[in-house]
Amino acid sequence: MAKVSGKCPVVFALDVIGDRWSLLVLRDMLFRGKRTYGDFLKSHEKISTNILADRLGKLEAAGMIAKVPARPNSPRKAYKMTEKGADMLPVILEMIAWSAKYDRYPEGAALIAGAPDDLLHRIKTDRDGLMAELRLALQ
Amino acid sequence: MAKVSGKCPVVFALDVIGDRWSLLVLRDMLFRGKRTYGDFLKSHEKISTNILADRLGKLEAAGMIAKVPARPNSPRKAYKMTEKGADMLPVILEMIAWSAKYDRYPEGAALIAGAPDDLLHRIKTDRDGLMAELRLALQ
Repeated sequence: MAKVSGKCPVVFALDVIGDRWSLLVLRDMLFRGKRTYGDFLKSHEKISTNILADRLGKLEAAGMIAKVPARPNSPRKAYKMTEKGADMLPVILEMIAWSAKYDRYPEGAALIAGAPDDLLHRIKTDRDGLMAELRLALQ
Repeated sequence: MAKVSGKCPVVFALDVIGDRWSLLVLRDMLFRGKRTYGDFLKSHEKISTNILADRLGKLEAAGMIAKVPARPNSPRKAYKMTEKGADMLPVILEMIAWSAKYDRYPEGAALIAGAPDDLLHRIKTDRDGLMAELRLALQ
């Protein structure tokens, strides 16, 4: 039987993604194909090694990501997003849509290969197709 | 001309709502009709007075909420959600949908008068109508 936290559902989600670094790790996996500790360290926002290790551990404990071998039979570890993690995609897409309305983002082009306007257009008109594509890239 | 932060749009949104207390204030306004400092203090999560004052100031500076008289011609202050703040509603609804999938929330019934299953059902089938109704309640 599912564990029931008894929390307000907004708080329940915030416990997992309410920390900016945790959400940025998910962003990097979803939009930038990052998988390894070294990949995450290279992000623009310059996460520190101890915070990164902490947040990867918390995301794994929450079931959002899982450790996998970096390559078959490799002792090196990488991370794979779980279904639970990928299900946070709609939240992130809504954040992007909100930011696009209240800011403009010259660097947003780096989010996904392709024009950010195209991303925004697809968030509005082809969200299911966009999500399916992003999820497929996680396989 | 709009100010352009040059930030990744996920970071731009996180700067405003990446702090749990900030998002809980928005939740209280959107779903619980709270408007005054005293209202927010009474929340289940027991926000402290100094954090509440800080977060109200930040949300106001970010243009998410605005100070208004508690009643016409009253010197007492209350807060009103702006269009920019209300536009965060889709992000919060997606968080609720995610939490509903991965947790269950006995106390969620308190979120809105009415069954939480009804809220979830409407998030899935009548999101536009639900958002219009919640926005109307902010007027």
